[in-house]
Order: sequence, then structure tokens, then C-alpha cells
Amino acid sequence: MDGRVGVLLLNLGGPEKLEDVYLFLYNLFSDPDLIRIPLRFLQKPIASLIAASRAPISQENYAMIGGGSPLRQITEEQAENIENVLQRNGLNAKVYVGMRYWHPYTEEAIAQIKRDCITKLVILPLYPQFSISTSGSSIKAIDQLWEADPELKHIERITIRSWYDRPGYIKAMIDLINTKIQSFEEPDLVHIFFSAHGVPVKYVTEYGDPYQVEMENCVDLLMQAIRRDHHRYNAHTLAYQSRVGPVEWLKPYTEQAIGQLAKRGIKNLLVVPISFVSEHIETLQEIDIEYREVAESVGIHNFDRVPALNSHPIFINDLAELVLESLGNVEAPVVPV
Amino acid sequence: MDGRVGVLLLNLGGPEKLEDVYLFLYNLFSDPDLIRIPLRFLQKPIASLIAASRAPISQENYAMIGGGSPLRQITEEQAENIENVLQRNGLNAKVYVGMRYWHPYTEEAIAQIKRDCITKLVILPLYPQFSISTSGSSIKAIDQLWEADPELKHIERITIRSWYDRPGYIKAMIDLINTKIQSFEEPDLVHIFFSAHGVPVKYVTEYGDPYQVEMENCVDLLMQAIRRDHHRYNAHTLAYQSRVGPVEWLKPYTEQAIGQLAKRGIKNLLVVPISFVSEHIETLQEIDIEYREVAESVGIHNFDRVPALNSHPIFINDLAELVLESLGNVEAPVVPV
Repeated sequence: MDGRVGVLLLNLGGPEKLEDVYLFLYNLFSDPDLIRIPLRFLQKPIASLIAASRAPISQENYAMIGGGSPLRQITEEQAENIENVLQRNGLNAKVYVGMRYWHPYTEEAIAQIKRDCITKLVILPLYPQFSISTSGSSIKAIDQLWEADPELKHIERITIRSWYDRPGYIKAMIDLINTKIQSFEEPDLVHIFFSAHGVPVKYVTEYGDPYQVEMENCVDLLMQAIRRDHHRYNAHTLAYQSRVGPVEWLKPYTEQAIGQLAKRGIKNLLVVPISFVSEHIETLQEIDIEYREVAESVGIHNFDRVPALNSHPIFINDLAELVLESLGNVEAPVVPV
Repeated sequence: MDGRVGVLLLNLGGPEKLEDVYLFLYNLFSDPDLIRIPLRFLQKPIASLIAASRAPISQENYAMIGGGSPLRQITEEQAENIENVLQRNGLNAKVYVGMRYWHPYTEEAIAQIKRDCITKLVILPLYPQFSISTSGSSIKAIDQLWEADPELKHIERITIRSWYDRPGYIKAMIDLINTKIQSFEEPDLVHIFFSAHGVPVKYVTEYGDPYQVEMENCVDLLMQAIRRDHHRYNAHTLAYQSRVGPVEWLKPYTEQAIGQLAKRGIKNLLVVPISFVSEHIETLQEIDIEYREVAESVGIHNFDRVPALNSHPIFINDLAELVLESLGNVEAPVVPV
């Protein structure tokens, strides 16, 4: 292979200290792929208002999980581990981290990629399922960098859009789920509760976001695999968490779904975070603290959560293999840009 | 056992000829448990209007399935078969059919029960899950007959509210589902689509109808059993059919859920009618003709339906056993009135 290969891992990013929270939220709400303000010139003033109003409660939430997001550290570990697997497989690639809303920003990563004279770049979002608001937003931001900087034209890009159907991802997930099921006193009675990050319904119905379709397919693949490989016949539910704002999001909402399960007499709940692969505020604070309280309040006292994949070796190996495949014969989930 | 035991099977009833359709619909919409008109004196005039407006299309639908509902014949066969099982088990009981909206009306059945000098009556709705609009409405009508006729006081009633968790019902259902799955070219790719009769959301959220809870529990029991007993790991969906009128019903609606599955790339659909146990207009016309057309229009060409239980021997035996249990030691799903 001529030239040098780079891999760019994309993620959301998160504030590392409580003082970062306001600016992180401002970056987040400034993204028109996340909040669509019809009058574009109002995007930043409105982002500033929302960030200011949400910062205090958000700071409290980050304070509960140690004063900042662990996302940067986890993602950098993932990068290092993937790089090691690639090296062991004979590919002398460098793996970078590009965050959408916090350091290391995608722009910083691309600047480093230029300095390192990378000629071929595999872009790998750390979201298993594609959404306009996550992978889509990051990929669009990269497209804009390429348009603005003629020097980048020499770097060939290979963009992976989503990979929720990868065998290693499925295997690592069901192993984690199975281990947690076993830790309950009555494993057969555990209800497996997939809690995905929500998006406004409009994304799916009007903007063509494949997120819901990919999420439902992902959950069915996971459930099929856990039945086949671990002989677990537990029932499951898919719900959507983290709704903000007044518009309708994908349903059922996590808190309502927990209430409905309680009404059905279900007493054992195992929550599976499904749209992200790393621990962050939505797992450590929202699920482990807020949704646990919701569950307690409706009488569900056996409540546990499956850990995020982070650097699970089967998962890391699978991502490295996905990178290798994307550089060789181009397969189904790999879309060259 | 002193005195004589009767069993009263409750069902909806259906028009036997096209000329019956208007009056059947009028009976249906006159039921305040089915359509709640806030001003009670308007119930019958409004029922008459709705029946008149819906009769022509409803007649067309019945014309497509041979000009009438097979429900009376199927229910009378069920009654005869249950009676035979009871007799074989040494219980000299008589089994009656009482329909809510058509002949043989519940009132006619009760009159016969009086003439036959029944002293103990097991009331068994042929709906696996309880809803205010089905079993609830029939049981309420029977309560009113008891209030109005002092002679009925001598007949002891044992009312079974629902029985979706009965082992024989579950076994008969999963056997039928499994047989149909095997008839597809690629059994593993079959999506099992439970289509339950819908009810307005208000019934559940405001009137305390346990229907949705019992339906979701029922589907989970069936799926768990088919995984365990037949090693089928197919994915499934629960949706609600037959919505009429402007208000919101339980979601997802069957036609929308079919569209969503098509978007997910699903090509093999096996519909399981789940709220009724007999063939009738909602299976023979609505699912087999209307929803099949919906599926075809979105590219799902492998479409099949599980037959209704009708007089499936395992099911009939189980209902007879349920009757026997209700007369002896009173168990969980059996509620004496």
C-alpha cells in the first residue's frame, strides 16, 4: 500500500470539567443537525439561550459522575487498542479521535492528519446505527472541511456509515447482556430493556433518517443471537431516552415504558444502552441514577444495567477488521465517499 | 355436586346474512362500553347514524367472505366440543352460547339456562385477554340481567375474566405458529406479526382497561414458549388493528407497522390474530384481504396468516379444564362474582 493510512474515530465529545459544560452545550445546540432552527441566523443566539438555561442542571448531572465526562479517555483508549490490532495485522495505520462538540475537535484531528501526511483515511463513527444527528452531523462537518481546504483533496476518504450488524459487535453485546442476566436471582424473569438515544420523530418521517429502522433491526439481531447462542428466551422492549424540548420524539419514551412494564408486573429490569458504545452521561447519570429512580418509584427494585462496550476485546477486534475490510474489498456496510 | 352445572360461552356475534348487517352494527354501536357517548340519551340515535353510514362498506366486506360471519357456527362447535370433554371427565354440564350483538343473544341463552334449571353457571368469555369493550361489556350485561330478574338469584355464577396465560392456549397457539413458519421458504427470516384488535387509548389510560397489559404479557408468553419448545428465534411485532373513528387508539396501528417492517427490509410476514380465537370478519376479510394488500403495496409478498384456534383440540381441552378448575379449587385467573 502506498502512502500512509489513518483511521478517524468520530464521537460526540463531552465536557471534561464542570466549567466546560456551558460551552459544550453551546456547541451542541449550535449544530443545525441536532436542533433545526428555521431561521439560520437565529441558530447561535438560540443555542446560547438553551445552553445557559440547561447548564446548571447539566453541571449537577456531571457533578454526580465525578465532575466530567469520561468519553475522551475511553475513546482515546479505543483508538490506541484499534491501532494495536491493526499494527498486529500488518497495517501501519494511525488512529485519531475527532469529537463533534468538544476536544479533541474533529478540526484538530484533521489538522494532525494533514501534518502526518496521511493519504488514505477511514472515517469510522463510534455510533453503531446511523442518525442524521450523530454520524450524519460529523460526516457533514468533515465534508465541509474538505470543501474549504484544497490541500485535503489529496487524502482519499473511506466513510463507514453504520455497522450495527457486525458479528463482533453483536457477539460482544450479547456476551455482556448474558453475563448480567446471570447475575439476577431469577434470570428467566429478567426483562431486557434496550434504551436508545431518542431523536425527534420528524427526523425519521420527514428528513429520511434511517435511525429507527437500523435500531429496530439491531435489536432484533441482538435478540436473535442471544436466543441462539445463549439459549436465553427473555422478553424485551425497545424505548428511547434523553428527550429534550417540546416536539415529539421516537416512542415509547424510556420513562413511560418503565411504567408500562411495572403495570405488567415485571420486577426485574436489565437496561441495555444501545446507541452508544462508551460510558458517558446518558449511561452513568441518566440510566444509572434517573431511570433507576423511575423504576424504584413504580416498584421495580431489581434494576441493573449492561456496561458499555468501551474497549471490549471482541468489539475492538471487530472494528479493526471493519477498517481492514473497508480498505480491501468494499463490502455492504462500507460506503466510499 | 348438587344441582346442574352450565357453562356460558360469551362472544361478539356476527351477522349471518347481508340483511343482518345494519341491525348488527346498530347493536354494536349502541353499547356504551364500545362507544362512549357523553350524553347517554344520544347513544341510540348516534348508533343508528354510524350503523347506517358503515353498513354499505361492511356489507361489501361480509360479501367477500361468503355473505355472513361464520362466528355462530364456530362458537356452537366450540360449545359442543367443550361439553363433550366435560362429559368425558364426568361432569354432566350443558354448554351455552351467548352473543353480545347477535343471535343467539346472551338474553336468549340465559332464558334457556333458567328453563334448564341450571344452579351453577361458569361464565367463560371467548376472549383470552380482558377488555372493558369485550368481556367487560358482556359481563356487565349479565350483571344487569341478574339485577332485573330475582329468579336468577338462585343461579350461582363463577365468572372467568381472562385466561391468556393458560398452558393449553399457549401450546395450541405456538403449534399453529410453528407450522406456518415452516411453510415459508426461509423460516428463520419470518417476522411474526401479532395483530390484536385495538381499543381507544383512553380505555387504558383513563378507564383502567387491563387490555394492553394482558396483551403484552400474552405476546411475551407466546414468544418465550415458541423459543423454548420449537427453537424458533424469529423476531416479532405487536400491533393493533380495526381502528374506527377519530380518536387515538393503541399503537402501533397494524397498517403503519407493516409499512415500518417493509422499510426495515423485512420480506416475510406471518400475521397472528391474537385477541380472538375464532375466524370472523377481522381475520377473513381485514387481515387476509385488506392487510395483505397493504403488505403487497409496500413490497412484502410472502404474507401468510395463522388460522384461528376454533376447535383446536388442545385449546378445547384446556378451556374444559379451566371450567373444571373454576368449579373446584379456585385458582389465579378465576374470579368468582
